Amino acid sequence: MQRPKGTRDFLPEEMKKRRYIEKKLREVFESYGYEEILTPTFEHFELIAKKTGEEIRKQLYVFKDYGGRELALRPELTSPVARLYLNELRYLQKPLRLYYFANCFRYENPQHGRYREFWQMGCELIGSKSPLADSEVINLAMDGLEKIKLDYDIHISHLGILKGIFKKFNISEEDEIKIRRLMDKEDYENLDKYLSTILDDDKKNLIFDILNLKGKDVLDELKEMLKDFEDSLKAIENLEEILSYLYYDNYTINLGIARGLDYYTGMVFEIYCKGKQICGGGRYDNLIETFGNESVPAVGFAYGFDRIMLYVDVDIEEERYLIVPLKKELIKEALEIAKLLREKGKIVEFEVMNRKLKKALDYANNKGISKVIIVGEREIKENKVTIKDLRTGEQKTVSIEEIE
Amino acid sequence: MQRPKGTRDFLPEEMKKRRYIEKKLREVFESYGYEEILTPTFEHFELIAKKTGEEIRKQLYVFKDYGGRELALRPELTSPVARLYLNELRYLQKPLRLYYFANCFRYENPQHGRYREFWQMGCELIGSKSPLADSEVINLAMDGLEKIKLDYDIHISHLGILKGIFKKFNISEEDEIKIRRLMDKEDYENLDKYLSTILDDDKKNLIFDILNLKGKDVLDELKEMLKDFEDSLKAIENLEEILSYLYYDNYTINLGIARGLDYYTGMVFEIYCKGKQICGGGRYDNLIETFGNESVPAVGFAYGFDRIMLYVDVDIEEERYLIVPLKKELIKEALEIAKLLREKGKIVEFEVMNRKLKKALDYANNKGISKVIIVGEREIKENKVTIKDLRTGEQKTVSIEEIE
Repeated sequence: MQRPKGTRDFLPEEMKKRRYIEKKLREVFESYGYEEILTPTFEHFELIAKKTGEEIRKQLYVFKDYGGRELALRPELTSPVARLYLNELRYLQKPLRLYYFANCFRYENPQHGRYREFWQMGCELIGSKSPLADSEVINLAMDGLEKIKLDYDIHISHLGILKGIFKKFNISEEDEIKIRRLMDKEDYENLDKYLSTILDDDKKNLIFDILNLKGKDVLDELKEMLKDFEDSLKAIENLEEILSYLYYDNYTINLGIARGLDYYTGMVFEIYCKGKQICGGGRYDNLIETFGNESVPAVGFAYGFDRIMLYVDVDIEEERYLIVPLKKELIKEALEIAKLLREKGKIVEFEVMNRKLKKALDYANNKGISKVIIVGEREIKENKVTIKDLRTGEQKTVSIEEIE
Repeated sequence: MQRPKGTRDFLPEEMKKRRYIEKKLREVFESYGYEEILTPTFEHFELIAKKTGEEIRKQLYVFKDYGGRELALRPELTSPVARLYLNELRYLQKPLRLYYFANCFRYENPQHGRYREFWQMGCELIGSKSPLADSEVINLAMDGLEKIKLDYDIHISHLGILKGIFKKFNISEEDEIKIRRLMDKEDYENLDKYLSTILDDDKKNLIFDILNLKGKDVLDELKEMLKDFEDSLKAIENLEEILSYLYYDNYTINLGIARGLDYYTGMVFEIYCKGKQICGGGRYDNLIETFGNESVPAVGFAYGFDRIMLYVDVDIEEERYLIVPLKKELIKEALEIAKLLREKGKIVEFEVMNRKLKKALDYANNKGISKVIIVGEREIKENKVTIKDLRTGEQKTVSIEEIE
């Protein structure tokens, strides 16, 4: 009997690392004032389908409950959080700073770092249009990675720049979606073909020139190229202000970022580690409106937690004790010592296999237990035990209060 | 657009309480040497169905993936953990101490404290037949509740006692399952009727006398009643030894406990708070064998985490700052102060709504923020800021290093 294809079992070593990284990242979210929320593992299919791109829609786990409701396991958290906001939090004073750490489900082809059940940790800052909000979430995303000491590249863009061009070129919304999808796949060959059918060569070349602009100091050049595109210039100024508030200047401006999800409206960013994307986010000022007749600006991002776990170095050392009573009559004393040590915050295993000392020491060595506490008759009469340090081989008799 | 019926959204206040209690309970599991594992949210239907009672089987969320696999959202964790043990851990030295904190799914009628998505936190101690293992998990279950200061009643029984009687009375396995189910529902009327069809009155009355025995010191009486039932006497001795190793003597022996799941074989226990069950567990020496041709003794329990949250008192106080730059030119200095404080472990919100001070203070008051840091031009020139304590109304100017 095996686990379902594309899923994972997490064993103790791995779980400890995951919980450690989770804790570090939580600390950063919380230090920025973000508060955790959690939505159900499944939602009504309708909600999930509404703003999910075609690609992801084909990967949904969909089912009916006994009441005939059509449900789907969540493939991401932004739509559920938008729903939660509308159901529960819409009347609170703004801004709202929310974060989540939750599993998502997509029927993908299993491959290195891609699973059918995977975890996202992310946040949404709801209610602010200010560039300060955009820079806050980028700063937060970078601070998280700094905290866990991960090397990364961050690419930032602003969809308003291209939208300004599309507007001036009278490109329809439908065409825009197609173009963004080809950009997102980096399928420049088909993008070239497609643009040729709707634009003359000068216009097409301008778009390609812009998509190819990459670097830290490209905004002046970009302004010059787009001096006749009013909306694009506004977007560039917005991006400049966002960038001016960043804590770190290690970013690359990359106009080629389009983001697979259709709901972004302004600044967008992606973070990579060793060439693989580990984080993505941006501004989505229209998403909440499509669910609930209320226009609310919002900006957020999500880390791909499993991807991060592939690249992060965690070395967890823990001190672990094993307590071995040498005879049955000493079990109760040994149990009390275990209780005492646990109350002091120690990790204490109790010998429950009825093993002789030698076998118990074998187990302890095997398991990487650091210290074995041997409860013997003679010692216990003097309120003492013998401690064997398995790393040094040292053995000594100490009073119960002195055990360390 | 609403969340699916029977599910919940957890808002920030509630999540903080849940995470706090989760952390406290984790500390107890870990202090006993238990290590966390995690299995997929869904399993093959076959695995889940194999050892799940009829009741729960009717409540499963079942669906097919695109590969035609029949899957089910997990309704509990013991079967998945048994599978994980067989897949990944069977060759490790015993004992294995595993714990989990995970969501489960049952299509129940929503009612107070019962949801279609709910959380269980539990553990399995795999590989030991010793009464010390039974008492360890009971001690652990009680220590967890002591740690979170919950008042509880614990009822303990041993299925071997009744099994010994059933054996002597030649009751078939099929009949035994029916009897246990009626016992579990406390449907004594139908139990009486049913027993009347297979046993004479003396025998039936003996069973009812035993089911009605309840208390702390009933084992001597029980031994007397069952002096001719060899297997029952062995079970009573086993239970006596288990009880002798408990840290707390606040238990009730209650032979009426049957446990809804069919896989228990020996000691079983249930814990109640204000009359509602919040925890259940016991020994299940045959479960792993039914999945994998290997006989491995095991004992474990699970807390109903959502039930616990209903009864526990948590009062979380946190200090929260809001930083407000008085003009746009001061934003960068204010951002640096925010960074500094966050690195010191403080929770710091930044004013991103472009509000004037008065409105920002309104927001802070509303949100329960404790201190507002006002970054003004004159003060910042001297490396100082103004702090307003919203609980006392006090306001003072301090140097940036002195902010507390």
